[in-house]
Amino acid sequence: MATLYHHPFCPHSRFIRLVLSEFGMEPLLVEERTFERREEFLQMNPAGTTPVFTEDQIGAVPGASIIAEYLDETRGLALGDRRMLPSDPAGRVEVRRLVEWFNGKLFDEVSSYLVTEKVFKRYMPANMGGGAPDMAAIRAARSNIRYHLAYVGWLIGSRNWLAGDRLSYADLAAAAQISVADYLGDVPWHENEMAKNWYARVKSRPSFRPLLADRVPGMEPAPHYADLDF
Amino acid sequence: MATLYHHPFCPHSRFIRLVLSEFGMEPLLVEERTFERREEFLQMNPAGTTPVFTEDQIGAVPGASIIAEYLDETRGLALGDRRMLPSDPAGRVEVRRLVEWFNGKLFDEVSSYLVTEKVFKRYMPANMGGGAPDMAAIRAARSNIRYHLAYVGWLIGSRNWLAGDRLSYADLAAAAQISVADYLGDVPWHENEMAKNWYARVKSRPSFRPLLADRVPGMEPAPHYADLDF
Repeated sequence: MATLYHHPFCPHSRFIRLVLSEFGMEPLLVEERTFERREEFLQMNPAGTTPVFTEDQIGAVPGASIIAEYLDETRGLALGDRRMLPSDPAGRVEVRRLVEWFNGKLFDEVSSYLVTEKVFKRYMPANMGGGAPDMAAIRAARSNIRYHLAYVGWLIGSRNWLAGDRLSYADLAAAAQISVADYLGDVPWHENEMAKNWYARVKSRPSFRPLLADRVPGMEPAPHYADLDF
Repeated sequence: MATLYHHPFCPHSRFIRLVLSEFGMEPLLVEERTFERREEFLQMNPAGTTPVFTEDQIGAVPGASIIAEYLDETRGLALGDRRMLPSDPAGRVEVRRLVEWFNGKLFDEVSSYLVTEKVFKRYMPANMGGGAPDMAAIRAARSNIRYHLAYVGWLIGSRNWLAGDRLSYADLAAAAQISVADYLGDVPWHENEMAKNWYARVKSRPSFRPLLADRVPGMEPAPHYADLDF
């Protein structure tokens, strides 16, 4: 049985949920609160981070980019034209570059701040960093997201999808990261029509539906969050 | 002509220098001061970070993990038994996990602080963050390196090399990160004999020689830095 240890508001977990769904896989989803540092979870991933994927053929596969590589290596060819990491070297470089951009840079500069301050701090005990949100961090994230949105718009101005002609891991990584900011109402969509249209296309995919159904107890999403025509 | 844009004290660049040398490649080395944000460099890598690799067959390949994947995909099979990313899925997961551990976690917690505070701040203009080192950051790095050294020692207690029976990208990533801390005299080798013996083995490889010859002008390395029998 394939299992994904994830958190609904971990954007890297969301990326892998999208990827697995695009592969036609429906793993068991186990919600992991990483700040609780559960012993069995740390044995699967000493780094203590989500997501972690497991299936019978392999032990634990920890980390979004490692899971994405593993799935491409074991199942990518079967997708044919819909393979999400292209077969040519230059295409692979560009997809990986953008995955790293969104899962690394956008996460560090935007979604990590928003999710930590607005979501995780509500559930973390005070001695683990819980408490009131740091407004300076939230302001920084809201400022930083503007240039990431401009970058998405710039890329999509000359390409059908972010990394080229076809949907790739790059689109799923970018949309997953942005989706948590969107839930929290922190994406200034009016600033970039191109980026908005691209996001509407990704959001309309069947793989995205479960993400649109995610809810934080006591914290409603932005009104347009699950609206495909926002 | 293969070219590597790097900085002698960027540990990710050092990792790729080791990798290229293990592949028997001798690229042209171009020193890049990323904080100068040179226009032509940003066109190769919009993220503005080293290393960036180029060769005739491909445009720019930016980022250590992306370069490592590219080299494995284009030349890995030719290495046969000496391939540094193993051919079996579980082996690939473990090597990638450890590369991410050392290039991500150890870098964020140790080498990034040390290199920024002790090296780059000397060359950066004040308006770009240059100036006196932040001693709190250096103390944090010196504290954090101890558990990374313990982790290396623990891994090597049950394996010949960090990820298994053979030398892999994991050893080169770990040694590259640790080598900058070692230059700066911040590795408490006396705390872990296993880790020290592993590092001595990696350090003795011919691929390591050019790193041991690196010097920061006006900043001598720790006395044992280039000593193979330290």
